[in-house]
Amino acid sequence: MNIGILGTGGVARAIAAKLVSLGHTVTLGTRNVEETKSRTQGDAMGNVSFQEWFGKNSSIKLASYAEAAAFGELLVNATSGIGSLGALTSAGEKNLNGKILIDISNPLDFSKGFPPFLSVSNTDSLGEQIQRAYPNVKVVKAFNTLSNPLMVNPSLVNNGDHTLPICGNDAEAKTKVVALIQSIGWKSENILDLGDISNARGTEAFLLLWVRMFGAFKSPMFQFKIVK
Amino acid sequence: MNIGILGTGGVARAIAAKLVSLGHTVTLGTRNVEETKSRTQGDAMGNVSFQEWFGKNSSIKLASYAEAAAFGELLVNATSGIGSLGALTSAGEKNLNGKILIDISNPLDFSKGFPPFLSVSNTDSLGEQIQRAYPNVKVVKAFNTLSNPLMVNPSLVNNGDHTLPICGNDAEAKTKVVALIQSIGWKSENILDLGDISNARGTEAFLLLWVRMFGAFKSPMFQFKIVK
Repeated sequence: MNIGILGTGGVARAIAAKLVSLGHTVTLGTRNVEETKSRTQGDAMGNVSFQEWFGKNSSIKLASYAEAAAFGELLVNATSGIGSLGALTSAGEKNLNGKILIDISNPLDFSKGFPPFLSVSNTDSLGEQIQRAYPNVKVVKAFNTLSNPLMVNPSLVNNGDHTLPICGNDAEAKTKVVALIQSIGWKSENILDLGDISNARGTEAFLLLWVRMFGAFKSPMFQFKIVK
Repeated sequence: MNIGILGTGGVARAIAAKLVSLGHTVTLGTRNVEETKSRTQGDAMGNVSFQEWFGKNSSIKLASYAEAAAFGELLVNATSGIGSLGALTSAGEKNLNGKILIDISNPLDFSKGFPPFLSVSNTDSLGEQIQRAYPNVKVVKAFNTLSNPLMVNPSLVNNGDHTLPICGNDAEAKTKVVALIQSIGWKSENILDLGDISNARGTEAFLLLWVRMFGAFKSPMFQFKIVK
């Protein structure tokens, strides 16, 4: 399948490489293609520079947000939450409409340091803001509650037994996204459908706990498993 | 130990009965003793009326917030989050100062129905508000991330293996609270100290996900276990 991924950071790269390994064709979208290609610095999270990563993943294309969105039959929002609505504006409604958008973003605001707070939360969520802005896009919130190595390789902890909450308004879209998530290696019993997109208020708010556990563990390699 | 518990709902009752079973002496605090004693209706959560519960737990005393706080060498805030600061005002600073206060409350606001939102969150928390209002009280946030049957009987799910985050500014107070939590039946490896009281922003925000999982499961008998 042709998949357009908005974003070029650690989450976008992890998802892109995994989807390519599964036989999909991926184009990443960015604000400024030449500027992104010229990046030779790694980031604070330990990711290598975009230039280095791009050189090693030659089957993945880089294009504008609009081109990546137009290319994808299915889309992934892996931009930073603060930049997501702007990225989607650049992507263009006509390139988004009618498609599934897996929204991985979290509205984390680091402007006051670590741990971050959320720029939207409690009585609203970024997932809902995106769905409201693009009513003809099928937004499925997923993968926003864990670190990117675990998203694409769940077996790295607890034999893959931990919980992935998802939510979204369109049942058929969620069925397709669940199938894609399972193809990545997730067991169906570990995928928890919370209901409509308003449940993004819950999964995004979880980040306020996640960042503090990350601080306590000094590692992003942890997950939660719901036990009953 | 003499323990004062502010509150008379499901959380207060569960903690009170458990502490009595462990040999402690407990007084519950309420706003209006006679009014509370006269309650003959159960609540929406399936708890029996206070009158019925009180009749079966004759070793537990009921008193005013101030009397319960004065009585306790250690205190527990098990009031509803919306009412916590008012209850503590009634309890009186002189009856609180110098003591450990285990704060179980969550600032859940049900005024717009279910699921509730939080009346304080993201850039502040109820735990911090309480600590700021009473700087000489040793506030330890604990037990606010799970349902009351599991607080006092963790073995009800997953052989007791699931995670209890705590936080607070006073290391010695946390050590004492951890010992009490262990005496209730929690394994030390499942108690996660996140750090100072500002981490209550994380554990309280988790409720925004908890209430949605409760909605999905139609049961409060679930917990999360951190896996690494």
